[in-house]
Amino acid sequence: MSHPIACPALRSRITDADSAAALIRPGETIATSGFTGSGYPKAVPQALARRMADRNAGEGPFRVNLWTGASTGPELDGALAAVDGIDQRLPYSSDPVAREKINRGEINYLDMHLSQVAPMAWEGVLGPLDTAIIEVTGIREDGALIPSSSVGNNKSWLDQARRVILEVNRWQNPAIEGMHDIYYGTRLPPDRVPIPLVRPDQRIGTPYFACDPDKIVAIVETDAPDRNLPFAAPDDTALAIAGHIIEFLTHEVARGRLPAALLPIQSGVGNIANAVLSGLIDAPFEPMTAFTEVIQDGMIDLLDAGKLRMASATAFSLSPHVAEKLNREMESYRDRMILRPQEMSNHPELVRRLGCIAMNGLIEADIYGNVNSTLVMGSRIQNGIGGSGDFARNAYVSIFMTPSTAKGGKISAIVPQVSHVDHIMQDVQVIVTEQGLADLRGLSPRQRAKVVIDRCAHPDYRALLEDYLLRAQSGSYGLHAASLPGEALSWHQRFMETGTMQQG
Amino acid sequence: MSHPIACPALRSRITDADSAAALIRPGETIATSGFTGSGYPKAVPQALARRMADRNAGEGPFRVNLWTGASTGPELDGALAAVDGIDQRLPYSSDPVAREKINRGEINYLDMHLSQVAPMAWEGVLGPLDTAIIEVTGIREDGALIPSSSVGNNKSWLDQARRVILEVNRWQNPAIEGMHDIYYGTRLPPDRVPIPLVRPDQRIGTPYFACDPDKIVAIVETDAPDRNLPFAAPDDTALAIAGHIIEFLTHEVARGRLPAALLPIQSGVGNIANAVLSGLIDAPFEPMTAFTEVIQDGMIDLLDAGKLRMASATAFSLSPHVAEKLNREMESYRDRMILRPQEMSNHPELVRRLGCIAMNGLIEADIYGNVNSTLVMGSRIQNGIGGSGDFARNAYVSIFMTPSTAKGGKISAIVPQVSHVDHIMQDVQVIVTEQGLADLRGLSPRQRAKVVIDRCAHPDYRALLEDYLLRAQSGSYGLHAASLPGEALSWHQRFMETGTMQQG
Repeated sequence: MSHPIACPALRSRITDADSAAALIRPGETIATSGFTGSGYPKAVPQALARRMADRNAGEGPFRVNLWTGASTGPELDGALAAVDGIDQRLPYSSDPVAREKINRGEINYLDMHLSQVAPMAWEGVLGPLDTAIIEVTGIREDGALIPSSSVGNNKSWLDQARRVILEVNRWQNPAIEGMHDIYYGTRLPPDRVPIPLVRPDQRIGTPYFACDPDKIVAIVETDAPDRNLPFAAPDDTALAIAGHIIEFLTHEVARGRLPAALLPIQSGVGNIANAVLSGLIDAPFEPMTAFTEVIQDGMIDLLDAGKLRMASATAFSLSPHVAEKLNREMESYRDRMILRPQEMSNHPELVRRLGCIAMNGLIEADIYGNVNSTLVMGSRIQNGIGGSGDFARNAYVSIFMTPSTAKGGKISAIVPQVSHVDHIMQDVQVIVTEQGLADLRGLSPRQRAKVVIDRCAHPDYRALLEDYLLRAQSGSYGLHAASLPGEALSWHQRFMETGTMQQG
Repeated sequence: MSHPIACPALRSRITDADSAAALIRPGETIATSGFTGSGYPKAVPQALARRMADRNAGEGPFRVNLWTGASTGPELDGALAAVDGIDQRLPYSSDPVAREKINRGEINYLDMHLSQVAPMAWEGVLGPLDTAIIEVTGIREDGALIPSSSVGNNKSWLDQARRVILEVNRWQNPAIEGMHDIYYGTRLPPDRVPIPLVRPDQRIGTPYFACDPDKIVAIVETDAPDRNLPFAAPDDTALAIAGHIIEFLTHEVARGRLPAALLPIQSGVGNIANAVLSGLIDAPFEPMTAFTEVIQDGMIDLLDAGKLRMASATAFSLSPHVAEKLNREMESYRDRMILRPQEMSNHPELVRRLGCIAMNGLIEADIYGNVNSTLVMGSRIQNGIGGSGDFARNAYVSIFMTPSTAKGGKISAIVPQVSHVDHIMQDVQVIVTEQGLADLRGLSPRQRAKVVIDRCAHPDYRALLEDYLLRAQSGSYGLHAASLPGEALSWHQRFMETGTMQQG
């Protein structure tokens, strides 16, 4: 194998992580690669965290604004959060250390639609970008950068940053070269033009990032795997949810409302979503395609089984053993996958054009089908909205799925009113729990409430919900979507006070 | 002037309204033209209402499902609602009689994103369509239909309906012919292609509707004006809001974040929105364009003043005297306006591509910038979400505006938590009241709360909001977006109990 840094002029910039991190100053805005734990820089952020720790113990404070594609790994979000090194964070975070700091009010977290991050950076409303730290698989002789296991916002960070630090990760299989499709046709209005993509398997760009070599101030070589959290084996709840969804899709095909090979599937990240994907192996739909944000284990299974023809995404999110396998057998997968910038993988124009079948998780839904995906008890951030809004509003069918209870039954996922809204009822067409599936299309709020309670609520909470609805329908200010403001959030209050939403 | 029905074969279908209405059976789904009170059928619905009244007094019941573009006039929504003739209503209603029935739970109202109505009808999830009743300006010799003062969903209704009833309204000036742009390039996925529109003044379709002549079962001639509600003259509050917005836009141009001629403006319907448009006459931006849902008085003023070069919309929404003037001088306006199907005027693909500056009203916003546009006290529908979601999420800048109080100060438009959400905080970038303007771009929830309270809240409520926020920031489950579920909706509860949100 040739040297991953084939560009002679750039070899002189090779240095160690500490030297690269020394280029970053307190108060900077840094933007890194990384999306759901793949393709993030592994060495420089940790070196930066050491500098921060030193300085915060002495002259301090040393904090930066941190922009990424989405979540990253403990060597980045976790390391910087642990030393109180993050002032502003966008657009998504799932790191447990960072989550605690955010929920203590110590990090200014901007939870953004993932399709909008790059455009907002181009518009200049997020402020100037100082340093980009981007993991790549290699550098070609002409200076073009071979992307790594995620694309995210890398194209935009490379374009917008004053200074670029590259990490070249030898762990990534060089055979990944050619998998990516980096579209350079974006412009700001009034000069925007249609994005020419009409099929998930279509390439509209180049496999490489361009970067002004004069901006590249340091190159650090690494050899480290992505953070790859294992998916749990599907339990009965996940299998039941998967079963309901497959039955629904089968019915839609039978009614002629979906093609026999379905439409491109989008799936959020998580164990339930992964179980649904796995379940599709035994479903009659083929050959399927995916136009989604991340490729997770279940999609690899579908590809292996020949049920999925092509998966388009912006990143991988795999269990360690699946990541190993993919990395090892990259050549055999490369032509069946495309990784794109996240402003393309999640673009409303493309999601609506392609007619994605969107499947996303939730924290809680209310009787009218409003969905809270982010804030536990209305205030405590779990992760973020991610791409769910990009997909749910523009999907051909928008499905949300969840177990009907959490915390051993102490929290009902179906509540009188959600404590926070990420997806308004208009964007929530189907809700699925292990109890059943509620098809809310074409129903008024009054009709939706009945179906959500009947089909989705856990039996332990069903009578309580029915009781609330009945009383709301006599005491509400209006009866379009009856509610009792004095009681609508009482389940959350009760949980906060007693540790359970159930009545004593 | 030639006869408006130039097609000889179709003249035999001319009949009276009662005969046409007699073709409609109880339980049917009927879809009509009409958008914000323009271009709706004026005669057949009233004849239908008379039939319903007769039958409901005898053998009854006679109810239909009613689909439209958006709101219509009292001769349609009002007349059918008054005789309890509406079972299901979509996608938007602002009729006072219908509103009462909806809020009594007597009409199943589906409040939909206006860009999604036609696609959902094509998908078949709304059910079959029996009869379309469409107002047109004329019928050409070849059978092509000359649209009227709104386009709305007419193209789709004509395509989808089993049976078509036309109203040919002589009141509309025949000189309107040529103003419309009906795009017939839409398909269902997987066959959807990019919509080729890249400028608001671009025509991508034909000026006419096509309709299978065999489906046309009746043609009724009318001569009646659209319902045109007068706009109020701007008061001090509206002028202050307009002033803040123009100052903001001026600042954005100065910072190089908006072109000197701005980007295409979108404006919701209403007195405040109209005042903002009028205020733009004295602003330095030109030549502007509009890519919006409706053309209202203020846009005509801007066209007259030469500040607006071109307005693209799906309908007119004008005061009576402005509607008269437009109708009278149609030839001089025709080439500076384009009316399109609402799935185009509101299409996320186009709104995002063009980079619209979206300006919409609201009922209430909360300290984090979540917006309620539809449900008073969380349950009583005012009108509907309309196109505000289509525009706000995809806009280049998304502005929401409102007086800081309503009902003589008894309701605060800024509340601890909105009682219902139509626009999530991610889609609300700027909030404006007469008190000031809050630019929320790039701010975390904690930062947003401070700015919203400081800039937008009425002084009578500011201390109450600060007090709530302070207590929330010590007692909240999480501090990302601090809230107190037991108190968050107490202002609404207090209003319902005492008639005011102010504390006794």
